Amino acid sequence: MKKFLNDVDGFLDESLAGFAAAHSDLVVLHTDPIFVRRRSLKQGKVALISGGGSGHEPLHAGFVGFGMLDAACPGQVFTSPTPDQMIAAAEAVDTGGGILFVVKNYSGDIMNFEMAAESCRNNATVLVNDDVSVENSSFTTGRRGVAGTVIVEKVIGSLAESGGTLEACKAFGDRVTKRTASMGVALTSCTVPKAGRATLSLGEDEMEMGVGIHGEAGRRRCKMMPADAIAAELLDAILSDLKPPKASDVLLLVNGLGGTPLGELYVLCNAAHRLLTKSGLQVQRTLVGNFTTSLEMAGASLTVCLLDTEILGHWDSPLNTPALRWRV
Amino acid sequence: MKKFLNDVDGFLDESLAGFAAAHSDLVVLHTDPIFVRRRSLKQGKVALISGGGSGHEPLHAGFVGFGMLDAACPGQVFTSPTPDQMIAAAEAVDTGGGILFVVKNYSGDIMNFEMAAESCRNNATVLVNDDVSVENSSFTTGRRGVAGTVIVEKVIGSLAESGGTLEACKAFGDRVTKRTASMGVALTSCTVPKAGRATLSLGEDEMEMGVGIHGEAGRRRCKMMPADAIAAELLDAILSDLKPPKASDVLLLVNGLGGTPLGELYVLCNAAHRLLTKSGLQVQRTLVGNFTTSLEMAGASLTVCLLDTEILGHWDSPLNTPALRWRV
Repeated sequence: MKKFLNDVDGFLDESLAGFAAAHSDLVVLHTDPIFVRRRSLKQGKVALISGGGSGHEPLHAGFVGFGMLDAACPGQVFTSPTPDQMIAAAEAVDTGGGILFVVKNYSGDIMNFEMAAESCRNNATVLVNDDVSVENSSFTTGRRGVAGTVIVEKVIGSLAESGGTLEACKAFGDRVTKRTASMGVALTSCTVPKAGRATLSLGEDEMEMGVGIHGEAGRRRCKMMPADAIAAELLDAILSDLKPPKASDVLLLVNGLGGTPLGELYVLCNAAHRLLTKSGLQVQRTLVGNFTTSLEMAGASLTVCLLDTEILGHWDSPLNTPALRWRV
Repeated sequence: MKKFLNDVDGFLDESLAGFAAAHSDLVVLHTDPIFVRRRSLKQGKVALISGGGSGHEPLHAGFVGFGMLDAACPGQVFTSPTPDQMIAAAEAVDTGGGILFVVKNYSGDIMNFEMAAESCRNNATVLVNDDVSVENSSFTTGRRGVAGTVIVEKVIGSLAESGGTLEACKAFGDRVTKRTASMGVALTSCTVPKAGRATLSLGEDEMEMGVGIHGEAGRRRCKMMPADAIAAELLDAILSDLKPPKASDVLLLVNGLGGTPLGELYVLCNAAHRLLTKSGLQVQRTLVGNFTTSLEMAGASLTVCLLDTEILGHWDSPLNTPALRWRV
């Protein structure tokens, strides 16, 4: 295992300290318990809090800032954060509008966010489960939450910023989640620092189709395929699930899992654009990059969100976070 | 070799097509010869054109847009673009203010940009050679141009946007280059698609200290070290070169080489912040991410730019490109 680290046990603390130093204009890092919060809070706004295991950076702390999250609670690598983190974060960012937790569908995360919710007044939860690969999985009852989380957090963040109530933000988050589907593929494994060895064992010419963001099994282990065939298999699964009406407007997210060069993500993007257009869909917006990663895993996921005027408006609205910025 | 591609020979074309599809609001892709240009040009502005071998994405095409480049000429992977690309790009974006070529110091790039310059009226060139690792190298007489190029292109781009003349932009670029120094380290090799095998052969516990962005040899091959020791060796080399006056304001760029997770880059960032502060310097701005990559190489580089009021002002000015956006 070759990684930039000093000490496996200190990895998360040091990484967050570097994150906070780099983005001190936007975020504040709290330790004991650990959470990252927005530097400037807005009175009366619904406070959006997310979190989950680390190793998926920039998710979630990278999305704390104007137009997206108010706080993020990072757990150890691939490990849920604990309720005390979420409770402390909620106390720090609650300005009277209520708390909306955005939780990826993993059993540990759900249990801990539920425990936190019991200790917080006026809160609701949006559960993101966009991964169409498998129905149940290690760590999950029901579908996994993966890169679609970025879209959900962005658009609810915009609604909250524009004065949406807790009820409206919760309903909007649920609606967008239902219109968002993802699937990923791994070409190589990741290595959890504490484990020190590869999570997945993939042969020289193999890939894991439908992989989870912790290296969980997907639909099948298969031989490497051309980019066009990979994009076609991912999009088939996604569109079979979403069943978009003809000529629908869509948002495409081409997400790198951490170890794939941007040039290759754009090859996938090209394939996905062509296939979506051929399916009669209108790709109105595209985001390409590493947004929901699995440490250094080579691989990628595609996410499609069925747009409507409301979702598109909130997608396009101003955003100022460490990992994504526009129109500010 | 496992990569998202259909055909090695079509890699660049397909990747650029995906890039253009994703960012059609900002850029236009021209083919035959290949270049990427800004969608909206400004009459009378100095036109900034850069380019170089592909495989370093988002450099350079990802920086075409408001506040940075007017055009970028991508060569094949790790191969210089040709003069016809630069000449066509210059014709497409020349709006009367003259052309400033920003060229990384590699023999092939210099030769081809010089040939292009002979065919263009009113032009000048800024040569970026920020890599302090080695004096001469494969492909290079003198120092290599690496991640500092992003800083140079950003700040000249701002000066050009604000009406700076060709002479002023050229002088500013030269001045910023002199105040910018970088060094990188590789933990793993990259694999050029056409070659199909690793460029560097690094043992399980080895790294290449001072590596170039094409996998060129650095100062030494050595055993893996803790992140703090790596940051210290890189910064020692950088600060020995820059010799900053005490209490200088600096910009720190922690650049991933493509295969390193963001969480590890922030560990390096944390180390670099502490070391720079300990050296009596003031880290005024920090940028962390994959900006000048070497395909899927695991590794990173640190860049320090000595700020002054003019450079800081142009760094902070509005920017709207596919890879970097702020204050717009």
